[in-house]
Amino acid sequence: MMLPAAIELDLPITVLATDPSESAARVAHDVRLGRHDDADAVRALAATCEVLTFDHEHVPPAILEGIVAEGLAHVRPGPHALVHAQDKLVMRRRLTALGHPCPRWSEAADPAALATALGELGGRAVVKTPRGGYDGHGVRVVSDAAEVADWWGTGGPLLVEELVPFTRELSAQVARRPGGEAVAYPVVQSVQRDGVCFEVVAPAPDLEPGRARAIQELALAIAADLDVVGMLAVELFETADGTVLVNELAMRPHNTGHWSMDGAVTGQFEQHLRAVRDLPLGDVTPLAPWAVMVNLLGGTREDLAAGAAEAMALDPGITVHLYGKGVRPGRKVGHVTVIGADREDLLRRAHRAERTIIEGGIQDRNDGVDGSGSGTDGRA
Amino acid sequence: MMLPAAIELDLPITVLATDPSESAARVAHDVRLGRHDDADAVRALAATCEVLTFDHEHVPPAILEGIVAEGLAHVRPGPHALVHAQDKLVMRRRLTALGHPCPRWSEAADPAALATALGELGGRAVVKTPRGGYDGHGVRVVSDAAEVADWWGTGGPLLVEELVPFTRELSAQVARRPGGEAVAYPVVQSVQRDGVCFEVVAPAPDLEPGRARAIQELALAIAADLDVVGMLAVELFETADGTVLVNELAMRPHNTGHWSMDGAVTGQFEQHLRAVRDLPLGDVTPLAPWAVMVNLLGGTREDLAAGAAEAMALDPGITVHLYGKGVRPGRKVGHVTVIGADREDLLRRAHRAERTIIEGGIQDRNDGVDGSGSGTDGRA
Repeated sequence: MMLPAAIELDLPITVLATDPSESAARVAHDVRLGRHDDADAVRALAATCEVLTFDHEHVPPAILEGIVAEGLAHVRPGPHALVHAQDKLVMRRRLTALGHPCPRWSEAADPAALATALGELGGRAVVKTPRGGYDGHGVRVVSDAAEVADWWGTGGPLLVEELVPFTRELSAQVARRPGGEAVAYPVVQSVQRDGVCFEVVAPAPDLEPGRARAIQELALAIAADLDVVGMLAVELFETADGTVLVNELAMRPHNTGHWSMDGAVTGQFEQHLRAVRDLPLGDVTPLAPWAVMVNLLGGTREDLAAGAAEAMALDPGITVHLYGKGVRPGRKVGHVTVIGADREDLLRRAHRAERTIIEGGIQDRNDGVDGSGSGTDGRA
Repeated sequence: MMLPAAIELDLPITVLATDPSESAARVAHDVRLGRHDDADAVRALAATCEVLTFDHEHVPPAILEGIVAEGLAHVRPGPHALVHAQDKLVMRRRLTALGHPCPRWSEAADPAALATALGELGGRAVVKTPRGGYDGHGVRVVSDAAEVADWWGTGGPLLVEELVPFTRELSAQVARRPGGEAVAYPVVQSVQRDGVCFEVVAPAPDLEPGRARAIQELALAIAADLDVVGMLAVELFETADGTVLVNELAMRPHNTGHWSMDGAVTGQFEQHLRAVRDLPLGDVTPLAPWAVMVNLLGGTREDLAAGAAEAMALDPGITVHLYGKGVRPGRKVGHVTVIGADREDLLRRAHRAERTIIEGGIQDRNDGVDGSGSGTDGRA
């Protein structure tokens, strides 16, 4: 999704892809085949580029450190920043040292230490592999050390975190240039399903402006403290008293920011490109009072194009994004966004579009969504 | 500019380009090299595609008719429609037969006929070569037949049109599917400079709603009458009494519709793709009360990227599009768009951005544009 923004700004991009069937490799003009964890492949790419950036966090730090040391390319975010999105234990240590709010946590180097940590955290806690997790992988809620017996011996201690009694999840996205210029998008509310982001409402409903501003400032402070360049997403737990705790960090355009592609003056992919190319950052003002983004998670239907056509026919006001990926159950294969003034109506329309695309056969033109919010002015 | 929309909708596109340095060829994943007037090249492309469509009107009708006759691909718009955007004389004959409003016109097969036509039109008129003109090429205002002496013998009669005393130019864009479903974008006002579109304001200021609706209906009627599939732009002259006359037709995303990329729920490039792929059409509602688009016409400055960075720094709220073309004086090399509520402020900002990119060195942070309209909320 960086490519459309790059095309509009005439910023040439070369994609490193493991396989020519990957989404980006199917649409980019310049594609190099190679693995992101193959030092030679990443170094060869870097040697042809001014700036190296990422759409995931899985490039090994040592490869990036070597590229920086040799001055092959600017690496943005730099490995010294990126490690905080790659290693949750490094992130917890650093945020705690900086005084940023985290759940109670500890590290456990062996089953006995984990049993002790579980006891200290109320007998039940979240255990995470510090590296390699995403979308719920590498995260388990356990009450007995034996439940992660298979995770030992994979390198280093595990992270143990309190089970936060959160009332909802929020996400704060900021963009930061090398010189420190930064902008904060509105704080959004995200809903997970089976550990995967499913629905985002921007801005977060019922978030008092002072608290929203404090959360933006927290995200800006983390970006500055860690010297992030590019987009940073700070995923947060909000608790009953309104305080927030940092859950995870992502240093790239993030699922919780997809709404901005259609709902803000400057979308997150253009913003990331501006930041890593050290261009002035763009306006983050929303284009409507509310934006709702719902992920398309693969179901049983293979033909997403047919589903998209059905959803477009039901509601001309939704914006459909399809990633060109094969459908597998639960896999993120696209998203839909709808913006407007009536949040409840937007939620209903976005979820109806999602179900229509994934499942098909939704016949609810008369379900109360009467099209009055879909802007059919001028329609013949 | 169709490619970003195609990527988001997962619609694979193959570009036919004469030279690998052409804008689309530089960014598309699938590029075939060949001329648009080489029957073999166009036919070979068509044989690989479901739908053949265009970003200009210069593919010879005979090539397209052959493709349709053999069923190699859907050609959208079809050659029977497209000819009205390719041949201004065919267009005038047809629109006049249909009763759609045109300037007074006649055709002149030789200098004597042209002299007669000039006399009938007040001694001074617009003479056009029916085919091959664009951006002011093939159009001359003459008072003596000798002024187009070089145009005879290039095939067929010339078109002679009255010099319309228009007060401004308007443009009405519609999209139409093969089955007839159609939508009309808001009517816009366009300003030409040296025969080239330079500034567009959407919607057209001071256009009474009833007149705007009548113009949309005229454009929808032309699309239906000519069986257009895809985007149709109807360029119009508005005269002192508020009536309109059709100037020219374009059957593709058009410069007067670029504002919709950033200023409407569905931009014209996505809309064109939806129409030609026979997908349901998207919502054309504007995202703000006003959108202003200003073209970047090449000046003396070669380094547009540096200019864009300056313009972005002056105004984070503008959206910059660069086409990746070499700079030549007067050549369209990009455009900027800005949307919001204060039309005069948007015009000032868009033109300041244009001058900054093309000329550089604009130092007018204190020229009255105080940033209050540029939405810096959330900026650190």
